[in-house]
Amino acid sequence: MKINMNMQRNLYKIGFVLITLLTGLFANNKAIAQKKDMLIRISEIEIYPEHLTAYKVILQEEAEASMKLEAGVVAIFPMYQKEDSTQIRIVEIYNGNKAYQSHLKTPHFLKYKTMTLKMVKALKLIDMDAIDPASMKLIFRKLKN
Amino acid sequence: MKINMNMQRNLYKIGFVLITLLTGLFANNKAIAQKKDMLIRISEIEIYPEHLTAYKVILQEEAEASMKLEAGVVAIFPMYQKEDSTQIRIVEIYNGNKAYQSHLKTPHFLKYKTMTLKMVKALKLIDMDAIDPASMKLIFRKLKN
Repeated sequence: MKINMNMQRNLYKIGFVLITLLTGLFANNKAIAQKKDMLIRISEIEIYPEHLTAYKVILQEEAEASMKLEAGVVAIFPMYQKEDSTQIRIVEIYNGNKAYQSHLKTPHFLKYKTMTLKMVKALKLIDMDAIDPASMKLIFRKLKN
Repeated sequence: MKINMNMQRNLYKIGFVLITLLTGLFANNKAIAQKKDMLIRISEIEIYPEHLTAYKVILQEEAEASMKLEAGVVAIFPMYQKEDSTQIRIVEIYNGNKAYQSHLKTPHFLKYKTMTLKMVKALKLIDMDAIDPASMKLIFRKLKN
């Protein structure tokens, strides 16, 4: 009977250790999944020259609203090529697909999309991956100092 | 004589106000100049598939060293296209041309350059401008919170 009690206690202990390990692993996997989940994109957009000035204003407004109002928008950084300013490039980073899907439904994005539809000559959305996800952290840490 | 003294005092006062205004303007212009000076680039690099794994490691090391050791490197963010991982894109932001020139002379950049020379199939350095320089500030502010 005494041996059985000891065995039972040991089984409880083993069970506890296993649960702790599994919980740790699960939490860790979730963290990795969240990191992997980050949605990174370069949008390559060509604008008809006659619409360029108007387009830039609308894009700037949309980027600003997204950054200010959406927690899931990590960064929207609109640029244009110095040699050909009709060539727009936007680096976009969303905190996962859910954040991106909700971005698509915001009034500021819908306004941008409808207002610029006829200004866009060509559009390519290129999904990217960070070579080192930690590099983004490095940038963030640096900018914090 | 009394009137002359008053006039002199007023001239001093006007002089003081003018100098204050001009100093303010000069300081402001300098700040704007520094903002305009920011060097932004997207490097488009194609890597021979057989060298891709090695290339990524070397690039990651270089980016990390640049971010850690160079105050003038605002951001180096290396990515690859999800659909074709041999297509590397690096968003690089330097705090002006001086910072970029000094970056080119660092041991970590020179090591990267010599070690990857034969791995690179195609290279295009595309100078960019931010559509709204304040958008970068927005990103930085957001990441601080």
